Amino acid sequence: MFGIVGDPIAQVRSPEMITWEFHRRGIDALLVPLHVPVAEFDTVMPALMRLPNFGGFVVTIPFKTRALAFANHLGLQAQVLGSLNLLVRRSDGSWGGDILDGMGCVAAFQNRGIPIEGRRLMIVGLGGAGGAIACAMAARQPARMRLHDLNPQRCAFIQSCIARISPATVVDIGPPTIEGMDILINASPVGMLEDARLPLEVQTLPSDLVVFDAIVMPEQTPLLALAEHCGCTVVRGREMMLGQIPKLVDGFLSPDGI
Amino acid sequence: MFGIVGDPIAQVRSPEMITWEFHRRGIDALLVPLHVPVAEFDTVMPALMRLPNFGGFVVTIPFKTRALAFANHLGLQAQVLGSLNLLVRRSDGSWGGDILDGMGCVAAFQNRGIPIEGRRLMIVGLGGAGGAIACAMAARQPARMRLHDLNPQRCAFIQSCIARISPATVVDIGPPTIEGMDILINASPVGMLEDARLPLEVQTLPSDLVVFDAIVMPEQTPLLALAEHCGCTVVRGREMMLGQIPKLVDGFLSPDGI
Repeated sequence: MFGIVGDPIAQVRSPEMITWEFHRRGIDALLVPLHVPVAEFDTVMPALMRLPNFGGFVVTIPFKTRALAFANHLGLQAQVLGSLNLLVRRSDGSWGGDILDGMGCVAAFQNRGIPIEGRRLMIVGLGGAGGAIACAMAARQPARMRLHDLNPQRCAFIQSCIARISPATVVDIGPPTIEGMDILINASPVGMLEDARLPLEVQTLPSDLVVFDAIVMPEQTPLLALAEHCGCTVVRGREMMLGQIPKLVDGFLSPDGI
Repeated sequence: MFGIVGDPIAQVRSPEMITWEFHRRGIDALLVPLHVPVAEFDTVMPALMRLPNFGGFVVTIPFKTRALAFANHLGLQAQVLGSLNLLVRRSDGSWGGDILDGMGCVAAFQNRGIPIEGRRLMIVGLGGAGGAIACAMAARQPARMRLHDLNPQRCAFIQSCIARISPATVVDIGPPTIEGMDILINASPVGMLEDARLPLEVQTLPSDLVVFDAIVMPEQTPLLALAEHCGCTVVRGREMMLGQIPKLVDGFLSPDGI
C-alpha cells in the first residue's frame, strides 16, 4: 500500500495513475488518497508513517515543505529546494524524501527526444513546480538559464540552487525573453483555466523554439496555441505529469536509492 | 475510502470482498487494509479517524474490544458484548460502532431459508465470534439455547447478554449435546486447519439437524464432513463471512443507523 497525502485531495490523479503503473509492472500494489487536514498534519502524518503495510507517500499541496521534517535522508533536489513530494520507508526503517516534480518535466523532454544539455532555457515562474523544474533541468546541464519570477528573493534562491546542482550553467535573472533561447518554459499560473494571457509579451515565436507549459488545465494554453500556430515544438503539462509517474514508482520500489 | 484495521493484516479478505460489494451496488468506494501495530493502536487509530475522506473502518483482531473506546454511539450487540467490528463516521461527525460478526451467521441462515425463530440451538464456543453469533441468533428469538465454552464466566456473561436481547429464550449452560436440538453451531476453534477433532463427542448426527461451523479454513471441517455424511443440512463458515459483507456495506452507507 502507498498513499498520497494532501489537503484538498479530490483533485489528485496519482491514485489511478500510479496504481496503473504498478499493475503495468506486474506489482500488486495500490496508491490511495489520504486527506490530511492542514491543522492535523503534524499528528496524522507520523501516525500514517507507522502503518507497516504502507511503504511510502506522495506528498502534495500544501505539505511539500512541512513534510521535510519527517525525512531522515533527502535527495539533492529536496535538499536544495527545501521541499519534497515523495516519502519512502527505507529497508532500515528510516525515511527517505525527494522532490520529483521537475523530473517529470525532464522525462517529458526525454520521451520526446528533445535534448537539454548545452541548450539555453528561459523559465517563467519559480513557485513549487517552477523551482523543481529549474533544478531538474539544471541537473541535465544546459549551457544557460534565465530565471523570471515576480518574487526577486525566490529568483535569487533558485539561482543559488542551480549553482549547486550545475556550476557550469550560466544563470541570470531577468525579464521573460525568447531572444537567444532554445527552450521556453512556463511554470507560472498565467494561462491557467480561463486566463487568456500569455506569460510573456510576444506576438510570434520562432519555429525552432521548444515551448513547454506546466499547466495541465486547459491542455491547450494560450501560449501553446500560439506556439503551435508558429510551428514550434510543443510539450504539454500532461506529459510532465505522466513523465513523473514512473519516477515515483521507481522511488517506491527502490526506497534505499534516496 | 474505508479501511480495515488489524494486526496482523495479511489474512484479511474484506478489501476485495467489500470493495466488490461497493462496486456491485454502483458505488465508487474502496476498502483498504491498514496494518496498525498492537502497540500503536491508541495513537494511530484516532489519527486514521481524522482523515476526512475515510468514512469508516472494519475492526478486526485484536482490536475489537479496544476500539470500543473510540465510538460515541453503540449498537445493542456491541453494547452487550463490549466489542465492535464496525466503526462509522455519522453525519454529525460522531462515531458509531457495532459488531456484525453474528449478523453474518444469521444472514447465512436466512439466505438458505433456514428458520431460527422458535428453534433449539446448541452453541459450542463463545469467544469473539461465538459470543456475537449467540447474540445475533438470540435476536431472532429461538425457543431455547444451550451454551458451552471452556470458560464458565464467559458462559454466564453471554447468558446475561441473551437475556437482555431475547428475554423469552430459555438459555442454559451445559456440555455440548445434540439431543433435543434443531441447530448445532460450532464457534470453537476445534476442527480448524489440521485439527481432526470434533467439537463434541458424537458418532453420528440425526439427518434433520442443521449443522453450522464458523471455521473458514478448512471449508470442510471434520464436523461438517460427518454432518454431510449423515444427511444433515450444512451451513459453512464461508457463508457467514459472505453474509456479513452486505451488512458491513449497509453500515458504511447508512452510518446514522447505528
